[in-house]
Amino acid sequence: MGSTINVTLWNEHIHEKEMPRVQAIYPDGMHRAIGRHLEGRPGIGQVRYSELADPDQGLADAVLDDTDVLVWWGHCAHDQVTDENAARVQQRVLAGMGLVVLHSGHMSKPFMRLMGTNCNLKWREHGENGEKERLWVVEPSHPIAEGIPGYFELPNTEMYGEPFGIPKPDDLVFISWFQGGEVFRSGCCWRREQGKIFYFRPGHETFPIYHNETVLKVITNGVRWAAPSRIAGGYVQGNAAPLEPMP
Amino acid sequence: MGSTINVTLWNEHIHEKEMPRVQAIYPDGMHRAIGRHLEGRPGIGQVRYSELADPDQGLADAVLDDTDVLVWWGHCAHDQVTDENAARVQQRVLAGMGLVVLHSGHMSKPFMRLMGTNCNLKWREHGENGEKERLWVVEPSHPIAEGIPGYFELPNTEMYGEPFGIPKPDDLVFISWFQGGEVFRSGCCWRREQGKIFYFRPGHETFPIYHNETVLKVITNGVRWAAPSRIAGGYVQGNAAPLEPMP
Amino acid sequence: MGSTINVTLWNEHIHEKEMPRVQAIYPDGMHRAIGRHLEGRPGIGQVRYSELADPDQGLADAVLDDTDVLVWWGHCAHDQVTDENAARVQQRVLAGMGLVVLHSGHMSKPFMRLMGTNCNLKWREHGENGEKERLWVVEPSHPIAEGIPGYFELPNTEMYGEPFGIPKPDDLVFISWFQGGEVFRSGCCWRREQGKIFYFRPGHETFPIYHNETVLKVITNGVRWAAPSRIAGGYVQGNAAPLEPMP
Amino acid sequence: MGSTINVTLWNEHIHEKEMPRVQAIYPDGMHRAIGRHLEGRPGIGQVRYSELADPDQGLADAVLDDTDVLVWWGHCAHDQVTDENAARVQQRVLAGMGLVVLHSGHMSKPFMRLMGTNCNLKWREHGENGEKERLWVVEPSHPIAEGIPGYFELPNTEMYGEPFGIPKPDDLVFISWFQGGEVFRSGCCWRREQGKIFYFRPGHETFPIYHNETVLKVITNGVRWAAPSRIAGGYVQGNAAPLEPMP
Repeated sequence: MGSTINVTLWNEHIHEKEMPRVQAIYPDGMHRAIGRHLEGRPGIGQVRYSELADPDQGLADAVLDDTDVLVWWGHCAHDQVTDENAARVQQRVLAGMGLVVLHSGHMSKPFMRLMGTNCNLKWREHGENGEKERLWVVEPSHPIAEGIPGYFELPNTEMYGEPFGIPKPDDLVFISWFQGGEVFRSGCCWRREQGKIFYFRPGHETFPIYHNETVLKVITNGVRWAAPSRIAGGYVQGNAAPLEPMP
Repeated sequence: MGSTINVTLWNEHIHEKEMPRVQAIYPDGMHRAIGRHLEGRPGIGQVRYSELADPDQGLADAVLDDTDVLVWWGHCAHDQVTDENAARVQQRVLAGMGLVVLHSGHMSKPFMRLMGTNCNLKWREHGENGEKERLWVVEPSHPIAEGIPGYFELPNTEMYGEPFGIPKPDDLVFISWFQGGEVFRSGCCWRREQGKIFYFRPGHETFPIYHNETVLKVITNGVRWAAPSRIAGGYVQGNAAPLEPMP
Repeated sequence: MGSTINVTLWNEHIHEKEMPRVQAIYPDGMHRAIGRHLEGRPGIGQVRYSELADPDQGLADAVLDDTDVLVWWGHCAHDQVTDENAARVQQRVLAGMGLVVLHSGHMSKPFMRLMGTNCNLKWREHGENGEKERLWVVEPSHPIAEGIPGYFELPNTEMYGEPFGIPKPDDLVFISWFQGGEVFRSGCCWRREQGKIFYFRPGHETFPIYHNETVLKVITNGVRWAAPSRIAGGYVQGNAAPLEPMP
Repeated sequence: MGSTINVTLWNEHIHEKEMPRVQAIYPDGMHRAIGRHLEGRPGIGQVRYSELADPDQGLADAVLDDTDVLVWWGHCAHDQVTDENAARVQQRVLAGMGLVVLHSGHMSKPFMRLMGTNCNLKWREHGENGEKERLWVVEPSHPIAEGIPGYFELPNTEMYGEPFGIPKPDDLVFISWFQGGEVFRSGCCWRREQGKIFYFRPGHETFPIYHNETVLKVITNGVRWAAPSRIAGGYVQGNAAPLEPMP
């Protein structure tokens, strides 16, 4: 890996093709809306796009070999991702690749395998316009919160509520307030072996969440935080000779 | 569940039958050595034994329905446990059943599924007698450390060393020192949805570790800590109506 | 310490004497309202009451010697507690005494010393009736959540909002939703050396919060969780001889 | 603050003047040995030196105003640092200044105030040459471990052993093995309000620890990790108007 972060944005890319309302918001896909924000930012290297309909579901080794951080959006096609591909993504993360999981990706196969839990939650789509969400920073010294205000609002969102069936986050960066009365751990970080995972809640397909500058900035911060950092000499396990003189 | 803890000790129970050295130490199996220590202790209810050779690999719903905490020992037959049974144990834990995983159980299917990582480590069997391990308490207010001395020694052990490929423990209770020069996170707690998991390192089959009173006391404390405690009204997820008046 | 938990409820006990509205709710003090709920519960031993106007500010060694868990309510008289008494409480907690800090106790001297931070927050008293708070359980396997519903409501409360200037909780049990748009980490656990600390938000003096059965149940659970559990042989630090043969 | 990190290395600077053995190793002070490694590294801005004998004990506002990360070494003169200066450093950290505390700084006033605990430990100086320490990385994805081997050795050290009286680290990066039989949490990270703290154990004055390249690299990584990252709009607490329409 070089000194910049190569990012691959994976999207099942179905709602945008099948639902006119979503297509109107994201004509070339949510991943491209996010990617356009990332392209050319300091520290960001190549930005690539990958999707379920691509060869090998967009998850071939050739793609992942060149990926420092993978951003994942999926929803209606979680089950179509093969177990082999889910396991490959899991193993890449454990070997150091960063993973940023967005919104409904909480029930994607790679995320569920990495969490070891069912990752379910409460949810609600209220009418045409959803409801208001307000995200509060609760870990202000965290690099993912850098430059983000103490709170920010999304006027129209799908609600996600607790209990969120995840392992306790290593860092809890954001907690959401919802108009309908719920709270949610909306920005969560985990370290897993050599890799890092960031889950960020905003992003329902029927609202223009990924055109919101603050949301895009959080994702950018998350990509930077999740970038690989490696020890020297590799991650050595297995049978080991003693390091001290033994009887 | 009643006011006492029903414990099921699951053991693949192969080394004890096939290796005379192990049989000499544990004639009726490691699970029974541990179970005899548990039987009749305050707060402990029924103590049952279950093994790979039993119907449904000892993991039938009828067994698990009556189990508050499952203690797991496996090594050479991890792969023989079916994926269905591993998934059933995982789901039981997420629904509240406690799980205490011992020694080589770190690579058992249920534990690996719950951790989401590969759970590998360094290891060494030094000669006939292994080497010395000294376990240090680093969380002295934790109930699993109750009544355990600040450190205790096992004169003959297999070594396990870092990096141990696990999620950061929610509570780290013990760290081991090894004669050959390694350290290891030897007593680790995790909460996962409604359930609790305790991993405890000691227990290599060729040494009489489960006849050591301090080891048995830690396991007993671990069983008590992992016992279910439940919220009222169940673990409610899924689609939810608003709790506040909405436009 | 015996097998039951001796609890001392410390209250500055000023608002109840000086504000008729508070006196009407708690004629003999908030501590006694809480204590009456604790008295005679399983596992609870002696329940004692202690206050700022008592000799030695109610914090004499004779009192603390007999206290397994100290429950603390203070607000307008934080500064009157002497530094010596604050340090004594801090040292008792580090030596194993449990501490349950309620509501405005977040800026009490003992709590601030134990946290090492300023423990400040956002707050609001809205009109005569305050506003609605809804507390959500986010760690359903935690013993402090035992028997508590997935969420519960307090119709009239003072608001506390993030950022709450505390160390990351070792366990985060409750998150509050407020009508006015804020969230708050309302139930937080920390281990500190040999002791345990539970902070629980509800409790503004002008509302009958400590007559609410669910609030009282959480406090009771918190007392049980914070009860001392000790290693054998004491907490040994200082100069130490080697445990291994040395050149 | 600019885009580079201004570092101030504070040293009580007494042993180096009074003990010939220490002077031989660090003729101009340990802080300068560390600082020379930092100077000119990527991302590092101004490197300044500050000591107890300086005006205002080297901790004047004019110094701290220009400091992004403060590195602290103290031992025999902890008590000479005034409470006012300790409180000033504590408040600077809570407001965002990074703090890297080295070795015997575990009992410095600023560190103890920030931890809220007694920060004591076991220790031993074995003969003239001390004993061997081996530091193991247990969080390999952490930026402080970047480029550090899976383990590294210091042949001659003072021993520090558990129990180490600190709050549970937010991130535990290194665990030490000691020749005499102890273990120690040697690299610990905490977030506190807007600031970050890294404690790193190596550094006894009578051994040339701060001439070791790996030790210096860890300190450099620690400085980078502890550098301030700030939310937009400041850390707002206190009385707050409702964000939602209220009755």
